[in-house]
Amino acid sequence: MILTVTLNTALDITYRVRSLRPHASHRVSDVTERPGGKGLNVARVLAALGHEVTATGFAGGGTGRAVREGLADTPGVLDALLPIGGATRRTVAVVDELTGDTTQLNEPGPQITPAEWGAFQEVYGELLAGASAVALCGSLPPGVPVGAYAGLVRTARTAGVPVLLDTSGEPLRRGVAARPDILKPNAEELAELTGSHDPLRAAQDARRRGAHAVVASLGADGLIAHTPEGRWHAAPPARMDGNPTGAGDSAVAGLLSGLVDRLPWPDRLARAAALSAATVRAPAAGEFDRATYEELVERVAVTAEVTAA
Amino acid sequence: MILTVTLNTALDITYRVRSLRPHASHRVSDVTERPGGKGLNVARVLAALGHEVTATGFAGGGTGRAVREGLADTPGVLDALLPIGGATRRTVAVVDELTGDTTQLNEPGPQITPAEWGAFQEVYGELLAGASAVALCGSLPPGVPVGAYAGLVRTARTAGVPVLLDTSGEPLRRGVAARPDILKPNAEELAELTGSHDPLRAAQDARRRGAHAVVASLGADGLIAHTPEGRWHAAPPARMDGNPTGAGDSAVAGLLSGLVDRLPWPDRLARAAALSAATVRAPAAGEFDRATYEELVERVAVTAEVTAA
Repeated sequence: MILTVTLNTALDITYRVRSLRPHASHRVSDVTERPGGKGLNVARVLAALGHEVTATGFAGGGTGRAVREGLADTPGVLDALLPIGGATRRTVAVVDELTGDTTQLNEPGPQITPAEWGAFQEVYGELLAGASAVALCGSLPPGVPVGAYAGLVRTARTAGVPVLLDTSGEPLRRGVAARPDILKPNAEELAELTGSHDPLRAAQDARRRGAHAVVASLGADGLIAHTPEGRWHAAPPARMDGNPTGAGDSAVAGLLSGLVDRLPWPDRLARAAALSAATVRAPAAGEFDRATYEELVERVAVTAEVTAA
Repeated sequence: MILTVTLNTALDITYRVRSLRPHASHRVSDVTERPGGKGLNVARVLAALGHEVTATGFAGGGTGRAVREGLADTPGVLDALLPIGGATRRTVAVVDELTGDTTQLNEPGPQITPAEWGAFQEVYGELLAGASAVALCGSLPPGVPVGAYAGLVRTARTAGVPVLLDTSGEPLRRGVAARPDILKPNAEELAELTGSHDPLRAAQDARRRGAHAVVASLGADGLIAHTPEGRWHAAPPARMDGNPTGAGDSAVAGLLSGLVDRLPWPDRLARAAALSAATVRAPAAGEFDRATYEELVERVAVTAEVTAA
């Protein structure tokens, strides 16, 4: 089974309004809710690809109950979330019907107690015993130490389980030093970590900081990978129009799926880039369009990069 | 006991953000939640004034559970909400820290089934037997017939219970024809009902349409009343700066409180205007500042209006 960790799960709410105007009152014409947080998005895509997935992290309060009810309706994802005293955060995406643009409001997340964090680390260790790979995804809720991912990376490496890290800011800086097998930042996170806006140079720097391999998502430009086996650029055959929400999480799912299927790097990258593009194309945010994926996975161009090392 | 009816209860969520910008992503720095919907706001103020209050209407889903937990923490309000299959709506108020302005997002509310609406009407009839007055407040959720308030007004009149109606649009138009004892529109609702932007003329028109008495809230200008006993204008001694959310609901509570205490109209209006102003002054939206209320209730100027009838 593949394990995904989402310490700051969310109830993702999407509102449709005619046009968002600051300081006005708006009638919401349509409301949708689903379990969110990057690791849960990764779990959903992995399950849709046919993998056995276990999702762990924290959930609490009425919003946590809604997240767990949503997970129970997702075939193939085993719910191993730990109950907490606080309430799972909400995110609210307000979609303008006129322009299609989205305004995002993200709650900070519940306060995690030291006892809850301790209990999580114990459960995480037990779950790793049955895992073929683990993904550590997203922000940390208040109360979880900033070095949390560094510790979880080390535990996975000690257990011999390949570990992918996808986070930002200081948790990323600390986490990379613990030597994760794969680091999956986007261009902005990679630039913040390294100070370089040249993705290949920055990926190389991130490897020097500890990551075994770095795969950076560059939006419509696809993915670049900097690994001990080589350097590649994976790009879909055409730019996709649509909603990029969750595209990075689908790339993570593609990388893990290719890893546990023992694919060579170029095939892993094709899978990740095709899933990412098929997510942009799907009508609902964070879902992927299966027909688009199956068509694209054969057509993604993966080219070896030959730049100054 | 005073009965308040809130068919479209809400979980009122308030977010603080630095500055709301359409199409950007925002970190919410502070989240508060409380039971909402106009009738629940009225109930809370009545209880704070020392009245026994029963709150009925609908509640369902995780959001309904949160509303009921909040009510259980409100001393003096008895929860007589009916459970439904759908989920209670949320309202999200986004407060700009830079300007103090608020952007409002209101969900439409759950679909009420004919069986749920039938069950409500039965419970309502039973609750009226113990009520000294009843307030019918706010919007109708989907599935409740547009003539709902007209029917509830008639049932109250048949039971001999004084009934106040505070709603808008077509439910107001239908409701007023059923002859409520008090109609409490704001200036905009009154203009929409009557086509007149002169509040005294419009109030007179609303009485012709069926309301026994009309009290219109005019924001910072206080209240005007058009009743069989006379016409008055009630104004606080100075304009209040603050958040007007819930000021109209506090005015309803003041009117009902004065009614069951058998106060003459000018004293009821002073109570309503003082509570309304004390709500604008309170730090939290929808709460009232007791010291401000106690000071103002002695100082509100209630003057008889002598205009063309």
